[in-house]
Amino acid sequence: MHKPAPPTFPPAPLTLTSIAKLKAAGVRAGIKASGNPDVALLVADTAVAGAALFTQNHFAAAPVALSKAHLLRSGGQVRAVVINSGNANACTGLQGEKDALEMCERVAKALACPVEQVLVCSTGVIGQKLPMDKVRTGIDAALAELGSDVEAGRRFLSAIMTTDAYAKEACVQADGLTVAGVCKGAGMIEPNMATMLAFVATDATLRAEQLARALPRIAQQSFNAVHVDTHTSTNDTFLALATGTSPTGPGWEKPLAQVSHRLAWLIARDGEGATKVTTISVRGAATDADARLVARAVASSALVRTALFGNDPNWGRFVSQVGNVPQVRNPRGLRCLLQGIEVFKAGEPTAFDRAQASQAMRAEDVALELELSDGQGKAMVMTSDLGYRYVEVNAEYTT
Amino acid sequence: MHKPAPPTFPPAPLTLTSIAKLKAAGVRAGIKASGNPDVALLVADTAVAGAALFTQNHFAAAPVALSKAHLLRSGGQVRAVVINSGNANACTGLQGEKDALEMCERVAKALACPVEQVLVCSTGVIGQKLPMDKVRTGIDAALAELGSDVEAGRRFLSAIMTTDAYAKEACVQADGLTVAGVCKGAGMIEPNMATMLAFVATDATLRAEQLARALPRIAQQSFNAVHVDTHTSTNDTFLALATGTSPTGPGWEKPLAQVSHRLAWLIARDGEGATKVTTISVRGAATDADARLVARAVASSALVRTALFGNDPNWGRFVSQVGNVPQVRNPRGLRCLLQGIEVFKAGEPTAFDRAQASQAMRAEDVALELELSDGQGKAMVMTSDLGYRYVEVNAEYTT
Repeated sequence: MHKPAPPTFPPAPLTLTSIAKLKAAGVRAGIKASGNPDVALLVADTAVAGAALFTQNHFAAAPVALSKAHLLRSGGQVRAVVINSGNANACTGLQGEKDALEMCERVAKALACPVEQVLVCSTGVIGQKLPMDKVRTGIDAALAELGSDVEAGRRFLSAIMTTDAYAKEACVQADGLTVAGVCKGAGMIEPNMATMLAFVATDATLRAEQLARALPRIAQQSFNAVHVDTHTSTNDTFLALATGTSPTGPGWEKPLAQVSHRLAWLIARDGEGATKVTTISVRGAATDADARLVARAVASSALVRTALFGNDPNWGRFVSQVGNVPQVRNPRGLRCLLQGIEVFKAGEPTAFDRAQASQAMRAEDVALELELSDGQGKAMVMTSDLGYRYVEVNAEYTT
Repeated sequence: MHKPAPPTFPPAPLTLTSIAKLKAAGVRAGIKASGNPDVALLVADTAVAGAALFTQNHFAAAPVALSKAHLLRSGGQVRAVVINSGNANACTGLQGEKDALEMCERVAKALACPVEQVLVCSTGVIGQKLPMDKVRTGIDAALAELGSDVEAGRRFLSAIMTTDAYAKEACVQADGLTVAGVCKGAGMIEPNMATMLAFVATDATLRAEQLARALPRIAQQSFNAVHVDTHTSTNDTFLALATGTSPTGPGWEKPLAQVSHRLAWLIARDGEGATKVTTISVRGAATDADARLVARAVASSALVRTALFGNDPNWGRFVSQVGNVPQVRNPRGLRCLLQGIEVFKAGEPTAFDRAQASQAMRAEDVALELELSDGQGKAMVMTSDLGYRYVEVNAEYTT
């Protein structure tokens, strides 16, 4: 039984607090039974431009609905984000809504800012009421401990994590701009459906609308391209902030996209028992939407994902999933490459060296390319493989 | 590591050869490396009414395309079905088409019937040419060994099986009619995507059009309700024959549906490493189509299926998958019952005894009921659970 050790990645040199105007804190409030840090706070010296994408799940948690409303009311002006881990405040009814609001109000009062400039995120078990005594104490402690050094940023990161096997952060400096980001989430496939939370900040000078327009594009090549399961959680949130201390040219979106892509990769890599990230690229579909259907059909297949785990160049599984997508127009036009090795073309398998292909699959990054001849549509999806530990982690009785 | 022994089921008292006019054979032709039977033949004394449903996969195998064409040309008149296992004759190009036709021609010549009255099915590895010398010898041997006793029917069944853990057959006698059926397939999730083949026969007196109209209805409550993966194979075939020796009233469809449902259940139960069949029933969706979307979303989730394997009454996973279906209109109206125990209602979990619910999940048949309040739409899906052995079987390098 393969039990790969969890991977380790060196910390990024910069984190959220490396962005001018941002302070952060992470404290232990006792929400998590483990005693690990569980209340995090991110505060800007003054309100900054912010935009966010939230889960589309019908059972979106109370903090998601509230943060969405706050962003709308403030016109994308964000002063602070308060986060608790250990409890998702989802499926908690009216009390959950009150608790989320109280978290924002407590921070707004301390900062003397309008409540709609404070956003809130929660992550953890669902269906349980927040232990508000602990949350209040935690928020007060976080307010008292805000810092602008890298260590404060690291404490923030540790307080948003749940079952993550490792801390996830990324940064890019380019064209005089700095972008740094952190996130939590493990392939979106945690026991109890733990959440993806991602916070990306830049010192670029941007209007909130510019960020809001860019975010869907960025997400499509990053967090929305992580497809380990069809599950999206009740709490998924992707927030971007621009603190506006650096003059900004037209190239500002690229480093934001790079940081987001790296964070998403780190999430895919942290699927339970995953041994690699497979990037499925579809080209030549009739439209981008059709390409996404194909990529997601392949990525969502347990058969495909177990073959990836087993380093099995099983072209039949990849091809048959493409064949299951009604929108494919010319199936005979399919060409399939695995780590650059052509394995299928024109309706028949290519004569390729299976042992060599299998060996090539033993990598941190595996590329599965699917070329169609239907048009110019393209899409990309990152998926983790499915191994024994996935079953072990997910089958275990949760109480 | 749970390694449940494969289940066993008593043989049905009747099989295909119990239906008047039908003879069968199953022989060893050496197509399978194991030496197990691999050529099967079903012959009617005269042409009988037949109808079939085939895979929708774009890479449908040569025998699928040919059988479809033959049924069309013959107007649903079927004299014989020839099947080989061990090789799917899929992704085999022009040679594959020629080989499928030659199989039909050889049988048609021996029976002195039009070639379009002969159908052909193949199942096994894909992407390899049929060893036609062996296939020819096998067909001749099967023609010579045709028998009408139960043993001949059993030999037929053993020759269509591939990685099935047990033989799958079912029969019903009602209203003076006999219906018997056999099938092969293990949750449609085999290594190399082996096929589902199902053959159901009745002595009812029916026109081919009557069978053809009923088949989609029957499949929706049986073979099309088996949802272990999103994969459908290149070769899936469901064939029904009516030999016309018994006078037939309006109730003929029900026993056909019952036999088909039982066969489909046996396929779901044979998912690799499966320990049970979970029937997901959705009621109260806006339409039947929406109900199917919900049922399939829940059934296709690896998170849901690992929870079922672990006897974990993890309502969060079921509910969140319902929440991911955009067509759900009133998510607050969702009620969720597991083995009759209410676990979720009106946006919040019910206070239920988790240990008792977990115990109730340790059964051959598990019922997961999802009640919506959007309308009258309903749907049913059967799924197997996902355990360690699924990974083991599917991750293993296939050469």
